[in-house]
Amino acid sequence: MLPVNPDRFLADLHHLRTFGAAGVGKGVVRQAFSDPDIAARKWLVDQYAAAGLETRVDPVGSVWGMAPGKSLLVGSHSDTQPEGGWLDGALGVICGLELARAGAEVGVPISAVSFQDEEGRFGVTTGSRVWGGFTSLDEADRLTDTTGTTFAAARARMADMAGDFVDPARFKGFLECHIEQGPWLDKAGEAAGVVSSIVGIRDMRVTFNGEQNHAGTTPMHLRRDAFRGMLRFQEIIADRFRNVVTPETVWTTGHVDLHPGSHSIVPGRCTFSMQWRDGDKDRLERMEAIIRDAIEETAQELGLTADTSEMLALDPVPMDPAFRAALESAAEEIAPGRWRRMPSGALHDATSVAAHMPVAMLFVPSINGISHAFEEDTADADLVIGLHILAQAAQVMAEG
Amino acid sequence: MLPVNPDRFLADLHHLRTFGAAGVGKGVVRQAFSDPDIAARKWLVDQYAAAGLETRVDPVGSVWGMAPGKSLLVGSHSDTQPEGGWLDGALGVICGLELARAGAEVGVPISAVSFQDEEGRFGVTTGSRVWGGFTSLDEADRLTDTTGTTFAAARARMADMAGDFVDPARFKGFLECHIEQGPWLDKAGEAAGVVSSIVGIRDMRVTFNGEQNHAGTTPMHLRRDAFRGMLRFQEIIADRFRNVVTPETVWTTGHVDLHPGSHSIVPGRCTFSMQWRDGDKDRLERMEAIIRDAIEETAQELGLTADTSEMLALDPVPMDPAFRAALESAAEEIAPGRWRRMPSGALHDATSVAAHMPVAMLFVPSINGISHAFEEDTADADLVIGLHILAQAAQVMAEG
Repeated sequence: MLPVNPDRFLADLHHLRTFGAAGVGKGVVRQAFSDPDIAARKWLVDQYAAAGLETRVDPVGSVWGMAPGKSLLVGSHSDTQPEGGWLDGALGVICGLELARAGAEVGVPISAVSFQDEEGRFGVTTGSRVWGGFTSLDEADRLTDTTGTTFAAARARMADMAGDFVDPARFKGFLECHIEQGPWLDKAGEAAGVVSSIVGIRDMRVTFNGEQNHAGTTPMHLRRDAFRGMLRFQEIIADRFRNVVTPETVWTTGHVDLHPGSHSIVPGRCTFSMQWRDGDKDRLERMEAIIRDAIEETAQELGLTADTSEMLALDPVPMDPAFRAALESAAEEIAPGRWRRMPSGALHDATSVAAHMPVAMLFVPSINGISHAFEEDTADADLVIGLHILAQAAQVMAEG
Repeated sequence: MLPVNPDRFLADLHHLRTFGAAGVGKGVVRQAFSDPDIAARKWLVDQYAAAGLETRVDPVGSVWGMAPGKSLLVGSHSDTQPEGGWLDGALGVICGLELARAGAEVGVPISAVSFQDEEGRFGVTTGSRVWGGFTSLDEADRLTDTTGTTFAAARARMADMAGDFVDPARFKGFLECHIEQGPWLDKAGEAAGVVSSIVGIRDMRVTFNGEQNHAGTTPMHLRRDAFRGMLRFQEIIADRFRNVVTPETVWTTGHVDLHPGSHSIVPGRCTFSMQWRDGDKDRLERMEAIIRDAIEETAQELGLTADTSEMLALDPVPMDPAFRAALESAAEEIAPGRWRRMPSGALHDATSVAAHMPVAMLFVPSINGISHAFEEDTADADLVIGLHILAQAAQVMAEG
C-alpha cells in the first residue's frame, strides 16, 4: 500500500472546504471560475508543487500535478454546484493529491488532477470533455451560463495561469474516487462501492399537440387535450417498463410545460422531459423503443400529433476489468464483506477520460444519499477506508 | 314581433368590428379600456342617443341606453380577448341596440347595455360584477392586468364620460344573446340554443410535495416524486368521475409546474390546476369530494404531502322560467325543430345580473365551435334567425 497519511488527507480536505464555505453546515459555494474556485485551484497548484510534481493549468482551467514518466492519473473536480456539498468532486481531488504525495515518497508514479466545470455551469463535465476531445475549445467558448456569461469570458479569468493541454499519453490510466450520491451503501452500512460501469443516459423532450379550446364549452369527448396525451403516455410506459427494467434502472420526468398554461383553457400543447438511465445499452434501447411506440400510440388514440427533440445519448462506460479487479481485492482486504460492486447512476469525469485510457472508480457512502446540497456528508472513518482502498489499488495499477 | 331591421343590424355589427380590426380574417383586438374599446363605446353612446334612449357611461365604463319607465335590458359586452373574434359579446350588444331601436319605434320599453371588461383584463366579468354588487369599486380599483396597470388607472381613461351607476330597479329583466363558443349547435346543424342555466365553476390549485433528488442516483423505489403524485391523482379521479358525470360535465388541468423543473432532478414539488364545471351544484360537490379524497389517498400512498389553494366556487345560475318559455316558443316559431335547450358552459354577464332580476340567454352557433380566436364566426343567416327569436321573445318579456 502507498504510505498515505489519513490526518494530512483529512486536514487538506477540510482546508479545501474553506474556499467558498457556505456558512451553512459543511456546505460549499464554489462554482467553476468563481473567485473561491480560482483561489482553490491556486492552492492546489501549490500543494502539487510542494509534493514535487510538475504543475500545469490547462487552457480550460483544469489543474494538474504530474509525476515523471508514465503515471497513473488520480483525481476528480473541485468546482461545486451553485449550492453544493464539501465532498462531491473535492474528495477525489484530495485523494489524488494524497496518493501523488505518497507515490512520490516511494517512487511510484502518480499524477493528480482537478478537472474544471464538472458540475456544468457551462456544459456537462466541460473541462474533461474538452480535454477528452468530445468538445472543441471553439465550441466550448460559445457555451453560456444561465446569466449569459460565455465560457470564453470565464476561462479568461485564469488566462494568466494557463499553459497548454496535457498529453493524455502521459498516463497509463485514471482512477476517480467519489461519494456515491445515492442511498445504497449508507442504507446497507457498507464502506465502499467498486463501480462496474457508469450508466448510460438517454434524454429527450416529448411534445403532444392537440387543440387549444375553451375549458367551459368544449365537451370532454370532443377535446384533443395535449395534457391527456402526456397522462396516457406515462400510463403506457409505466406498464411496459415493468418487463424490461431492473431495480437499478431509473426514469424521470422532471419538467412539464402546458400551453397556454391557463386554468380555463384546454391545453393545445404539452411538452415534457423524458430521461432514462441504465448500465446496459441494450436495455436503454429497449426502453427507447417502448417510449417511441407509446408516443405514437397515444397520439393515434387521442387524435394528437407528437414531436420529439433530438435525443441526448451517452452510452454506458464500463470500468477497466484489471483496474476493477485491483479495487475489488483492495476493498476485500481493507473492508472485508463491507463493499459491493455497483453501477454509477451519475455522470463523472471518468466518462470523458475513458476515451483515452483505462478508468476505474471507487464510491464511498453518502449519508442519507444526499448530494448537491449543503447537508452532503460522509463519516471520516469511511473517507479513510476509501483512501486506504485507493492506496492499495493504485500501487498495483501504477506499477502494473 | 318587434320590427327589427336585419340589414341595419348586420351593418352595425360589421361597423363595430372596425374598432380594433386585427387585419386577420374578421379578428378583433379590443381589450377593455384600450383605445379601440373606448372609441367603440363612444360610438355606441351615439347610436343609443340616435335611437332616442337616455345614455349613460357608468363609473366602470359600462355604457347604457335607457328607455323611459321600467324596461327590459338587452345587451352583453363589447370588449374582447387580447386576440378575439368579432362576435363574442359584440353580437349581444348590437342585438340590444337593434331591439331598443325597434322597441322605441313601437313604444315597447327596451334598454341596451355594453358591460365593461367581461373578458377579464382585470377580473372576471368585472363591469357587471361591480354593478351587480359582487365586487366593490374599491376592490376592483386594486385589480391589475398582466402588465401591472390597475383597474383604477384604466377606468380613469373614461372618467370624462362617466356618470353614476344605473339603478337596477329600472329593469324588469335581462336578455343576453351570445355565440355558443362550443360545437353542439354547429355540429347538429341547429340555429339556436335556449340556455337552461349557466354552469357553476369550481377552480383550485393542488400541490404535491415530495423529495427533490438526483435523477441518476435515486432508485425508483426510494423516490418521493411529486410528479408521480399528480399522475396517480389524475388516474384516480378519471376512474371515479365516470360514476358521477354527465356528457355536459367538464374538468380541466390547464397548468402544471414542476419544481425545480430540471430534466435531471426528481421533482420535489408539483403544482397543477383543477377546474370543473357543471349545471348541477350537487354534482359539483360530489366531484369536489372525489378530488379531495383522491388528493389524500395519493399523498398517503406515495409518501407525499399535499396542499390545496382556496377554491373559487361560482354556483350554477338557472335562467328565469317565464323568460325561457318565451324564448322557447319564439325559437319554435322562427326555427321549428332547429333549436335546443342547453346549459352554458361559459360564464357570462347574465351571471352577475341574475342577482337583481330575471335573466335569460340565447345562443347562436359558433362555426366549428371556435371562439376567443380570430377565426370565430357565425353564418349571417343564423345571426338573423337569432335576432328574430329575440325580437319575438323580447316583446313578450317587455310587455309581460
